[in-house]
Amino acid sequence: MATNHKKAILLIIDGLGDLPTPKTPLQLARKPNLDRLAKNGMTGLLAPVKRYVVPGSDTSHLEILGYDPAIFYHGRGPLEALGLGMDMRNGDIAFRANFATVKNGRVVDRRAGRIDTKTATAISKNLSMKIEDVQLEFRNSVEHRGALVLHGPGLSHNVCETDPHDIGPLHECHPLDSSREAAKTARIINRFTELSSGILSAAPENAKRDKPANVLLLRGAGYYAPVPSFTERFGIEAACVAGGALYKGIARYLAMDVVIVPGATGDRNTNLKAKAQAAAKALGDYDVVFMHVKACDSAGHDGDAEGKRKMIERIDAEAVPILEKSGAYLVITGDHSTPCCRKGHSGHEVPILVYGKDERTDSVVKFDEISCAEGGLGHIRGKDIIYLLLNLIEKAQKYGS
Amino acid sequence: MATNHKKAILLIIDGLGDLPTPKTPLQLARKPNLDRLAKNGMTGLLAPVKRYVVPGSDTSHLEILGYDPAIFYHGRGPLEALGLGMDMRNGDIAFRANFATVKNGRVVDRRAGRIDTKTATAISKNLSMKIEDVQLEFRNSVEHRGALVLHGPGLSHNVCETDPHDIGPLHECHPLDSSREAAKTARIINRFTELSSGILSAAPENAKRDKPANVLLLRGAGYYAPVPSFTERFGIEAACVAGGALYKGIARYLAMDVVIVPGATGDRNTNLKAKAQAAAKALGDYDVVFMHVKACDSAGHDGDAEGKRKMIERIDAEAVPILEKSGAYLVITGDHSTPCCRKGHSGHEVPILVYGKDERTDSVVKFDEISCAEGGLGHIRGKDIIYLLLNLIEKAQKYGS
Repeated sequence: MATNHKKAILLIIDGLGDLPTPKTPLQLARKPNLDRLAKNGMTGLLAPVKRYVVPGSDTSHLEILGYDPAIFYHGRGPLEALGLGMDMRNGDIAFRANFATVKNGRVVDRRAGRIDTKTATAISKNLSMKIEDVQLEFRNSVEHRGALVLHGPGLSHNVCETDPHDIGPLHECHPLDSSREAAKTARIINRFTELSSGILSAAPENAKRDKPANVLLLRGAGYYAPVPSFTERFGIEAACVAGGALYKGIARYLAMDVVIVPGATGDRNTNLKAKAQAAAKALGDYDVVFMHVKACDSAGHDGDAEGKRKMIERIDAEAVPILEKSGAYLVITGDHSTPCCRKGHSGHEVPILVYGKDERTDSVVKFDEISCAEGGLGHIRGKDIIYLLLNLIEKAQKYGS
Repeated sequence: MATNHKKAILLIIDGLGDLPTPKTPLQLARKPNLDRLAKNGMTGLLAPVKRYVVPGSDTSHLEILGYDPAIFYHGRGPLEALGLGMDMRNGDIAFRANFATVKNGRVVDRRAGRIDTKTATAISKNLSMKIEDVQLEFRNSVEHRGALVLHGPGLSHNVCETDPHDIGPLHECHPLDSSREAAKTARIINRFTELSSGILSAAPENAKRDKPANVLLLRGAGYYAPVPSFTERFGIEAACVAGGALYKGIARYLAMDVVIVPGATGDRNTNLKAKAQAAAKALGDYDVVFMHVKACDSAGHDGDAEGKRKMIERIDAEAVPILEKSGAYLVITGDHSTPCCRKGHSGHEVPILVYGKDERTDSVVKFDEISCAEGGLGHIRGKDIIYLLLNLIEKAQKYGS
């Protein structure tokens, strides 16, 4: 498709980087397509935020998409809520929410016995309510997960979480500063916890459950403030293809269009072919398509090196050939490392490759953490990526004349 | 010349970097001298401003010479005017100017049939004038080019250009903000356009021209404010050897001495031997000599890869041996890439080499975009160059004690 020669696809493989124990999943994976792109393109290592700083997925994506998180990151909750399609207005507060099981004031299961999505949807019906002058909206997503939005005047995100992050006593919500706004928000959250627990306890779906979903744990408080759109800031049109709510939420936050792909789940069963096809198709309407694949990060968190390797092989076999055939410039990297031996994010850099017509090449022939350290891109930073993309597709504004 | 062992020459080859289609002009050029310096020196890639940001020649040179353009760049016009030897005082405004042909209010030739310098000089005689309390000075340079300076109180550079940048209606000058200064400047520019067009139309030299030079198109508005001199800021004496007005203007702006070299034209016929000899000679009086060669950039803008290769070969054969023989440290790079396949500036890095007595070396043996990506300097930034120079010649101020 020669028409895509001034377009680009940014593929972010979440948690891609790893540590050699004694080989990384990327080193072990059979991935002839990624290796060929590395061989015919430029490679390097990406420090998503700053070198050795351990990024969250939220801050890392903002940085990579050209939005300095020091300015534009206001907490995880609003991004999750936006990703679930919830509306947010200036000054609204949002939390991530978990259905959990509480007994005598103690959380005994943080996931309510891994409640299924259908049951969670059924019991979520009556959880939106008005408290004082604040309208609260709850929406569930996958399994035990969801988001809570507070619409109303005089709110603050500077309150503590009710989620104990482990089994143990349910936390009360306290204000974290002496403002009226924080006091009001904490009061409303505590009242919501009380009222929603009552509604949930009475739900017929919970009657037969060994671990009833009888409380919503709240965490990741943040506030929403509108930001200049991606198009406004960079002069190009962009679309997002993702399964996970956070990534769709980040796209909505930046006023990118989100392409809905049936079968894009954000887990290891996601339909990679459908996502890649949707990304390639979106090039007809957009300058840059941001495609996100989540499951490598989840495997890293689970310490599942074998699962991570298999997911890389699936991406290589099912998505990469479609992206390559699109004719667009390709930038392929991750948002951070999630080493399986650590079961969490780390500050190690992530391999990156840039491939496309007439672009420079280097002598690296494999796409992995060790090989790409010798690549011609050297060590690049998340905030460089937006300029890299603009330069590839010749949409950069010249600085000076 | 052992006396030059604590001196340095900074050679900027404008628009040097390119893209492999399938080889870059630098890769294709026969350039034994540059390759030998690369082999016996250190190499790397330079991001003149920030990685992948597309620089103008003006901002890039300011950055490389240690003047952050975010602070010290006030538009292209004043730098061009200074380069033509025009005086500028605090608060003055300047534009770049083009002789053009206008017919019924439409620009039909942006270069007035590529008017020759002699004719342009003849018709430029009466174009300086006073309007209200503002003195306007025009000076022509090469062919259709020139600069206009406005001396006077209460002016602003925040006005639009009259140059349509293509054939089409001549633009009126509008203020770009609601200040009295912008309104006054726009009014004066429109009056100048009217008066100068009248004078030009009546010029006898235009009578016999098929495409009369009957209007001056203005662009690149900027204001002049004095800046601390290069010597004041860095404690060393520097001179400039250049053909193009912009580069001489930047040097004057920073209060560097400009060495006038007969035959230094800023085009592909420039006398490279004379320039290199002048640079080597200037080492007797200065710590650092900044030498600029323009024609590779012009070839890139023209999409002329063959011309770019030939110019690189001329620099290698005619200038580099003289610079090497001077005994000074050499820093050789470009101010940005101008890929022939793009016919304009790009954000791709530029190869750089550093060569001199007792300096470190790396394993790179060729001076080109691909080889230097593996060089020991790694990826360096324009703003690092001034410290590199100061360090080479042992004139750096220690930071701390």
